[in-house]
Amino acid sequence: MLSDKVEQHHRSLQAQLDEMVELLDKQALEREISLRQTGARQDLVEALVSRQQLAEVQRRLDRLHPADVAYVLERLPPERRRQIWTLVRPERRGAILIELADAVRDNLIALTAPGDLVLAAEHLDSDQIADLVPSLPADTVLAIMSTLDSRDRSQVREVLAFPEGTVGALMEFDMVTVREDVALDVVLRYLRRLGELPEVVDQLFVVDRIGEFKGILRLKDLLTHDPEHLVGEVMIREPLVFSTDDPARDAVAAFERYDLVSAPVVNLHERLTGVLRVDAVMDFMSEAAENERLRQVGLREDEDLFAPMWRSTRNRWPWLAINLLTAFVASRVIGVFEGTIERLVALATLMPIVASLGGNTGNQTIALVVRGLALDQINRANVLHVVGKEVGISIVNGLLWGAVVGLVTVFLYGKPGIGLVMALAVVLNLLIASVAGVFIPIVLHARGRDPVLGASVMLTFITDAMGFLIFLGLAAVLLT
Amino acid sequence: MLSDKVEQHHRSLQAQLDEMVELLDKQALEREISLRQTGARQDLVEALVSRQQLAEVQRRLDRLHPADVAYVLERLPPERRRQIWTLVRPERRGAILIELADAVRDNLIALTAPGDLVLAAEHLDSDQIADLVPSLPADTVLAIMSTLDSRDRSQVREVLAFPEGTVGALMEFDMVTVREDVALDVVLRYLRRLGELPEVVDQLFVVDRIGEFKGILRLKDLLTHDPEHLVGEVMIREPLVFSTDDPARDAVAAFERYDLVSAPVVNLHERLTGVLRVDAVMDFMSEAAENERLRQVGLREDEDLFAPMWRSTRNRWPWLAINLLTAFVASRVIGVFEGTIERLVALATLMPIVASLGGNTGNQTIALVVRGLALDQINRANVLHVVGKEVGISIVNGLLWGAVVGLVTVFLYGKPGIGLVMALAVVLNLLIASVAGVFIPIVLHARGRDPVLGASVMLTFITDAMGFLIFLGLAAVLLT
Repeated sequence: MLSDKVEQHHRSLQAQLDEMVELLDKQALEREISLRQTGARQDLVEALVSRQQLAEVQRRLDRLHPADVAYVLERLPPERRRQIWTLVRPERRGAILIELADAVRDNLIALTAPGDLVLAAEHLDSDQIADLVPSLPADTVLAIMSTLDSRDRSQVREVLAFPEGTVGALMEFDMVTVREDVALDVVLRYLRRLGELPEVVDQLFVVDRIGEFKGILRLKDLLTHDPEHLVGEVMIREPLVFSTDDPARDAVAAFERYDLVSAPVVNLHERLTGVLRVDAVMDFMSEAAENERLRQVGLREDEDLFAPMWRSTRNRWPWLAINLLTAFVASRVIGVFEGTIERLVALATLMPIVASLGGNTGNQTIALVVRGLALDQINRANVLHVVGKEVGISIVNGLLWGAVVGLVTVFLYGKPGIGLVMALAVVLNLLIASVAGVFIPIVLHARGRDPVLGASVMLTFITDAMGFLIFLGLAAVLLT
Repeated sequence: MLSDKVEQHHRSLQAQLDEMVELLDKQALEREISLRQTGARQDLVEALVSRQQLAEVQRRLDRLHPADVAYVLERLPPERRRQIWTLVRPERRGAILIELADAVRDNLIALTAPGDLVLAAEHLDSDQIADLVPSLPADTVLAIMSTLDSRDRSQVREVLAFPEGTVGALMEFDMVTVREDVALDVVLRYLRRLGELPEVVDQLFVVDRIGEFKGILRLKDLLTHDPEHLVGEVMIREPLVFSTDDPARDAVAAFERYDLVSAPVVNLHERLTGVLRVDAVMDFMSEAAENERLRQVGLREDEDLFAPMWRSTRNRWPWLAINLLTAFVASRVIGVFEGTIERLVALATLMPIVASLGGNTGNQTIALVVRGLALDQINRANVLHVVGKEVGISIVNGLLWGAVVGLVTVFLYGKPGIGLVMALAVVLNLLIASVAGVFIPIVLHARGRDPVLGASVMLTFITDAMGFLIFLGLAAVLLT
């Protein structure tokens, strides 16, 4: 019905999910009962009931779009997830695995018999199979490959040959190609004979006899031009094409900027090898966005809310170790001034403020610079402009907020000296923070590293260590 | 030529950008020269030369896609940006403004004469005009509205009526509608007569006489079915439709999940009012992703790398103020224990370690939970599972890393007592951090607030204050 609005859709999915779980619960409950009261008859009845309930759950699952089943599975705790998964028909599992988040996908593949996995793969395109391969056990992969015809097999190999994050790894193969020298009405008849077009299609691809790419024929042009015209007269000869080794993020930028729905992908010999579609680009985009959130805090991208606890626990170790190391180093800086602190213990109370203000401003600068790099707004020509501006801001804010901090300190401790030291320390630490905040991500980026990963830890280390050093150092010189 | 690959495309854009800047520089230089050596003749020559160069820059700008001009403008420091902008032909400025990042757009609109803005708007669709309105001065808006016919004017009003982040604010109006009771070949002839289709189009919309939405006719079905068929036989009667007040992020989810290219938007009376296209959805997606990076550190979304320094400086104040407040409060906790620290100054050296480890783990938990909320994987049913898991992880890691910290401390200070206190403090603070890390974003989200904004500050405050309290408290009790 028309009232199938997105929000209602989500709600109804949630409702169906709850009902299914309920059905499974009832069943579990009855099994328990039957375990207590023995007696074949009772068991029989119970078995029938539970089989009915299972069938009901299965019927509901069958009615859901594969993407919706994936949606449901991702929201279930492991135990439930397993139960539901066993009720999904093998021939639908492939389409569902494709839609699942990596961590959940791995989890379910581990729970599926190799035979069922092969069966599931039979209903997938070669590019979809390629997506699954990394998560599949080697022997299962071989079994699947043996079921493919040589063309599909070579396509799977081709996609797998391209590293993640390249256009080649995102492209698909199902596309319609036509020749330059035929009339549009011939194309129209050809499409009717085909009867079936790719799921997402806005253009046909024009190639010559040897498969060299000549241009694109947009469906809108096919539909709006006189059928007498030749493809060659209507096609676009110089569209934006991708090569298989273009970075995927460049493709994202191009799709956004030129509002593309699909684009041809050619290999190094200008042969048309595949098509990049907006749905693949969108998936790549959102995955990248989600993963950045995790990388920022040093978590592996495959960390899943419902991943086994032990694995998640180990995922946190590298970061904890680094953090522990930097924290100890920073604390050694304080250790150097223990004498000073002994003489004026207020310093111990105040020093975290200097460090914290520095870390805070520095992280703001990092966020801005990382965005600038992502939108690729920062280049050699203007990097100095950026540095100059951030330094300027930090000086102004340093003087302003340093003064505030200084006055509050004087108010708290009644010692102008400490207030002055605090103010000076804040000014200097904000200055250091802004410079570090600009250069850490830029240097990481320039070295082809991820400008987000580790930037914030590095910065906090610098602002902590320097904050303590400056503050306690000044105090040692000026106050004691 | 075919070799117009994305990366090369970027490089060539950068090159053209540099050349244009160079041309402008040369011109500036020559003007200077001419200023030194007076003499009408020299001036005349210089004027001619410079006019030639300006014309050349203009020619190059004209050849660029509006999105590419926007790309160039976003990468120029303000002064340059102004220069180039003045060279863009007024009739192209509208299309370019649409493509620009908000901050840059506002900056350029401020530099453009109202008359030119009205001229620019003449070449835009009503939904595009609506996008610009928020950045335009009121009188300019009135002037533009007066140039529109009543239909366009009401469309602009309609889009503006929907708050940002709703489908209504993202939808467009240019679409092709057909009737149920006509044959496909009638539709085909109709499209040829139209001669022009929307830029991104994968389906036509089927409505009845009174404009009530009946279904969609996908171009692929139009192309693959016998022209004798009626639209009613081929159309999809129950597609996913959006209503104007659906949240845009639900639309993003739906487009991703069902690989949509466009979708119908209906109003509360089931009348077809507009169309939501994947390019608008993608733009919304990437803007949301970029803005989150800034919101995480409490920066306004319109903060631009090249925004005037004074504005950027003020943008940082609210966060600095909050940070200063929390830092002072945390430091008061230390103040309470100054007596203890005086007796055992090593505590001052070690306390930042406890706080830092807590803040670090807590932020990892926040990142996971925020992603879980974004993918809407967290619900009442499994939230306890999530809490339980994170608590479990923090206990295991607390014991493990607490032991490490304890041993290192004993090694550094040779006092088992301090080592024990450190270890205990780490265990407890990680525990607190994990609980806070789960609940802060969930509570913010449940209250309809942004789970990212402020979460990290709140957490760091808790882990700092509690870290100091636990560590120094235990020390006061056990050591002195």
